[in-house]
Amino acid sequence: MNANHNKIQRIAITPGEPAGIGPDLVLALADEVCHHQIVVCANKQMLAERAALLGLNVTLKGYQPDTAPEPHQPGCLFVADEPLEANVIAGELNERNGRYVLNTLTRAAEGNMQGEFAAVVTGPVHKGVINRSGVSFSGHTEFFAHQANVPQVVMMLATEGLRVALVTTHIPLAYVAKAITSERLVQVINILNDDLKTKFGIAKPRIYVCGLNPHAGEDGCLGREELDIMIPTMDELREQGMDLVGPLPADTLFQDKYLNDADAVLAMYHDQGLPVLKFKGFGKSVNITLGLPFIRTSVDHGTALDLAGTGTADTGSLRTALSHAIELVDKKA
Amino acid sequence: MNANHNKIQRIAITPGEPAGIGPDLVLALADEVCHHQIVVCANKQMLAERAALLGLNVTLKGYQPDTAPEPHQPGCLFVADEPLEANVIAGELNERNGRYVLNTLTRAAEGNMQGEFAAVVTGPVHKGVINRSGVSFSGHTEFFAHQANVPQVVMMLATEGLRVALVTTHIPLAYVAKAITSERLVQVINILNDDLKTKFGIAKPRIYVCGLNPHAGEDGCLGREELDIMIPTMDELREQGMDLVGPLPADTLFQDKYLNDADAVLAMYHDQGLPVLKFKGFGKSVNITLGLPFIRTSVDHGTALDLAGTGTADTGSLRTALSHAIELVDKKA
Repeated sequence: MNANHNKIQRIAITPGEPAGIGPDLVLALADEVCHHQIVVCANKQMLAERAALLGLNVTLKGYQPDTAPEPHQPGCLFVADEPLEANVIAGELNERNGRYVLNTLTRAAEGNMQGEFAAVVTGPVHKGVINRSGVSFSGHTEFFAHQANVPQVVMMLATEGLRVALVTTHIPLAYVAKAITSERLVQVINILNDDLKTKFGIAKPRIYVCGLNPHAGEDGCLGREELDIMIPTMDELREQGMDLVGPLPADTLFQDKYLNDADAVLAMYHDQGLPVLKFKGFGKSVNITLGLPFIRTSVDHGTALDLAGTGTADTGSLRTALSHAIELVDKKA
Repeated sequence: MNANHNKIQRIAITPGEPAGIGPDLVLALADEVCHHQIVVCANKQMLAERAALLGLNVTLKGYQPDTAPEPHQPGCLFVADEPLEANVIAGELNERNGRYVLNTLTRAAEGNMQGEFAAVVTGPVHKGVINRSGVSFSGHTEFFAHQANVPQVVMMLATEGLRVALVTTHIPLAYVAKAITSERLVQVINILNDDLKTKFGIAKPRIYVCGLNPHAGEDGCLGREELDIMIPTMDELREQGMDLVGPLPADTLFQDKYLNDADAVLAMYHDQGLPVLKFKGFGKSVNITLGLPFIRTSVDHGTALDLAGTGTADTGSLRTALSHAIELVDKKA
């Protein structure tokens, strides 16, 4: 799609919580075929120990920012080394390493902001242990938004044949209805529409929108937010040229006849859109942050401490996150 | 499972709104193989006209309550005739027939209460036109609960491999969090557990319970209802011998590793549980009312006025509703 399609770039990967399955998954990624350079932001010694524990034969090389990017070689990983505070034992959280996790994210974000990296792919972090380490941390998405100095980002999950973006994310259900304001809808739909165009190369994105209430409010009988807020706001955005369908009942929207026609579905809240996406994705879905000045994809699962070091963790989501990042990097190049 | 397994019984079917696809679907059911007698509670002349419009060759016989039940014969339907107030035109709502629709439901409910029918299978009604006819009507489920004089019923949807029951149903999303009380959870879980035993023949039902909040509240960070209400209530019910798992995050619960182990999933609200069920069911899901003194199954879709009389309506959900009703009748017999 572009003359620069084959330009070699660098993609940063952060394994996240070192006691979880993140390092296992990143080490497994070494076998991927990738025409870009993969740079792991993590502690090199910890990765070596985990590889030994898992019986994986991965060559870990020190990453040199000043050299030219080189394509990924299966079996090798470049590591941008970050020091740990404490030794890592697979499966055992240690709040002394909370700051280390944030340092790896900061390294990846700064490299992206400065053009050293073309994307970042993130493994799972453990919010609790970071907060217990004395640093307030509400999630990757918010952390990167802060680093990039953007006021609003949008969380979108994607799997084969379905993209679901969220208007609200990690807030109590009791707060959701009040959070669905015209201002928020305008911000979120603008970001979604813009990123589908610029990052995904869709000329005129068609966005299907879920109602907030059951049956999309059923003409006001089951809630008035659709009539009072959603429909007028969507009409305004349509006048600006956006292709928005809905608001539709969420329990009938997720059918092939609609999904085949949709570039993305916009759900009003977390558990309205994600159960069906993750069910459809079956371990192969990816979390993409929209609205950042760089490309960020992520696994859609947690640290699975009980599986760390066992070799049984499912690598599907991290592989999907990497392949989406590569696709987006190539589209942008 | 019982000596009376092959006893011939009567199953009432209500096509619902006469201008919608209900009559089309019921006429299509005439080709089913069924060892019970199917009795359609509807206007016979309207059914004959719709059959002519669709080019279907269905013999409509007048139903005689005083004769012995006879097995269904493919190509024939017995009709418990109900008079209309106005002629029916497919696709055109007429509020003059609102009362007629309720009369067909009343006929079916009374027949079930008196033992004349062993179950009722309902087609789609149009709540708006019934209300505009001057009768307050909030839905089949509430109507049957009132007729049967039970204070609380539970809506459950089922498809191959998944049953989802709901703690709250058709209320605005803004009211959901306040509606999740310990009392309501106890009532709903008791009805679900009892009906899984008595109607579905599951000796010790295992019920997976979704948290109310995203990530099931994440230890109180994303809402406290799990900690303050759900977990203590579930612990009490466990002490009474119930097998409850959770509360679990709704976006990870709907995975085969959990679903293969669950007799039912309990969702806290409509759009948390039904999008994934209907996506999985793909037009073959059924709505079952628990807590009634009789068996009631239903389609999971609306009246689809635009498809009435065209022959293109999907019969999958009504056929699934009938087959579930037959299965439950045979289990109970």
